[in-house]
Amino acid sequence: MKTLEWDNGALCLIDQTKLPGELQMVRCASYMEVAQAIREMRVRGAPAIGVAAAYGVALAALGASAAGRDEVLAEVAVATEILRATRPTAVNLFWALERMRLVAEATPGDAHAVKMALLEEAHEMAREDEERNRRLGAFGAELIHDGDSILTHCNAGALATVAYGTALGVIRAAHDQGKRVRVYADETRPVLQGARLTAWELMREGIPVTLITDSTAGYLMSMGRIDLAIVGADRIAANGDVANKIGTYSVAVLARSHGVPFYVAAPTSSIDLSISSGEAILIEERCPQEITQIGDYRVAPAGVDVFNPAFDVTPHGYVSAIITENGVAREPFEPALREAVGRSSRRRG
Amino acid sequence: MKTLEWDNGALCLIDQTKLPGELQMVRCASYMEVAQAIREMRVRGAPAIGVAAAYGVALAALGASAAGRDEVLAEVAVATEILRATRPTAVNLFWALERMRLVAEATPGDAHAVKMALLEEAHEMAREDEERNRRLGAFGAELIHDGDSILTHCNAGALATVAYGTALGVIRAAHDQGKRVRVYADETRPVLQGARLTAWELMREGIPVTLITDSTAGYLMSMGRIDLAIVGADRIAANGDVANKIGTYSVAVLARSHGVPFYVAAPTSSIDLSISSGEAILIEERCPQEITQIGDYRVAPAGVDVFNPAFDVTPHGYVSAIITENGVAREPFEPALREAVGRSSRRRG
Repeated sequence: MKTLEWDNGALCLIDQTKLPGELQMVRCASYMEVAQAIREMRVRGAPAIGVAAAYGVALAALGASAAGRDEVLAEVAVATEILRATRPTAVNLFWALERMRLVAEATPGDAHAVKMALLEEAHEMAREDEERNRRLGAFGAELIHDGDSILTHCNAGALATVAYGTALGVIRAAHDQGKRVRVYADETRPVLQGARLTAWELMREGIPVTLITDSTAGYLMSMGRIDLAIVGADRIAANGDVANKIGTYSVAVLARSHGVPFYVAAPTSSIDLSISSGEAILIEERCPQEITQIGDYRVAPAGVDVFNPAFDVTPHGYVSAIITENGVAREPFEPALREAVGRSSRRRG
Repeated sequence: MKTLEWDNGALCLIDQTKLPGELQMVRCASYMEVAQAIREMRVRGAPAIGVAAAYGVALAALGASAAGRDEVLAEVAVATEILRATRPTAVNLFWALERMRLVAEATPGDAHAVKMALLEEAHEMAREDEERNRRLGAFGAELIHDGDSILTHCNAGALATVAYGTALGVIRAAHDQGKRVRVYADETRPVLQGARLTAWELMREGIPVTLITDSTAGYLMSMGRIDLAIVGADRIAANGDVANKIGTYSVAVLARSHGVPFYVAAPTSSIDLSISSGEAILIEERCPQEITQIGDYRVAPAGVDVFNPAFDVTPHGYVSAIITENGVAREPFEPALREAVGRSSRRRG
């Protein structure tokens, strides 16, 4: 199963707003449709958003009506701005757009050459994503022991990436090694990615999963029923501070308080060395209806004031290790993260 | 507004499963209907459950078909067992049933005398409940400062009691004293008492309230936006350990980690001196559908394994103070709680 895939001139995405009820694909034949799918969270998860945006840029180039190279580059620039504005927190989006911009500018030749180069770069990013996750999974699996009960928050699975997943990729790798694990999946209000996506994904793979409300995680830890916690990341600052789905910070504080290791699994494309700490990360606030309405069911009084941040920041002091495709980084994070990012750049360059 | 009220031979309850959409009353004319309303959480909140159960016993007595005193006592005994089995965690239920049993046994005279004594005792408990909450609120309001932002979890409001509320009673009292406060209400999954009841109740009173998901509380604390947390209790052990709505423990750990005071507001009827610590408290587990289904909307894959405890236990070390109708108890809790319970017994006796 691929979360997103190029198919005959369009980007096809699993519509994640329809899961677990329906497994339905959305076909995006233009960058505007890709931007909309990202905004509406039909595709979500930092790595998947990055690759989707890359395909968005390719679609913009392919769809440029005028024939000249400059017109294609102009269209790419417009699409890049629109895609950049879809969601503010996950850095993979900006990372992917920057890679596409560099390719567009560096590619010699006519409009056709630029179009082909951009499409090829998007394909390359999709291939890389899955390959990175498998390497990340292999490194992370070393931290998991036979019999472990593992808490996860939100969905950092195949559905958050092109395939395989980050935090769930680690669990998948451990499971494939024959380690018996049980996953406790936080339902992850308000959008319920844990209930709708993580539980669905793990059940399909036969990995034991138990669904809990977000506020049950602390109680489970107090009962000694959690051996480790592992989550993904939307952006990691140079010092190891981690922006991830709202509630991640609470999990980290609770884990620390109970002596439970707290791991973050993310590709180097989620690391933003341009910011020294998490304080510089812009946290997206989403609409109140995500909280006040579930399906057709109104769960709060009309007009109630709501605070709905989509992410929070976990200071690096709460993070036991950050698992990337280039190994396991620990405190002091800054040199370790620079080394990990450097290796990926050298491999590509 | 009264959460429950005797009306012409029946117990009338606000149906809390219908809020905030509809303000609808349920009329219970038999103890079986009261038991069902408690099981289905049409009435909920430890103090409200206690008083509802007391009226259930009165209804059993009033409804006894045979004329003799012994038959009435037998009917009361059956009703007591059925009401006792409705929910296991909140001690107010057992406390109320025990009070009714003592009255039934101690009342001399014929069947009619027993019936009238039981109904009068239920009325007395309803009156006491509101009066205790007002006293509790006055003590607790001293802990609240002008301009405070207050986190609360679940609903420990008028709707959890006969009227006024415990944790929300404290907030109400501070508000009535002219202190400007803002309440952050955890939505409180799975049953959403915070979104459905606390937000509704505070908006009706004009007390500023902001609704958040449960997992946003930690992030708000990390931003310095919470001055104190206050919750109710379903049962308090002799050492000050507190059983309350699932997620309370997480709030307490987060509060401790951020230097935020964590207060528990509960009448002495929620204190169970017969158990030395929270380990002895039976935690109710409720059906998976509370988590997997919201209204008609299925939010998790069919057949997913679920762990759905309705409560958790917060060790007394996390509790800054316990506010009762007899004052504010602090560590060491045991003598302070014994003193508080003793005062209520002396007042009654």
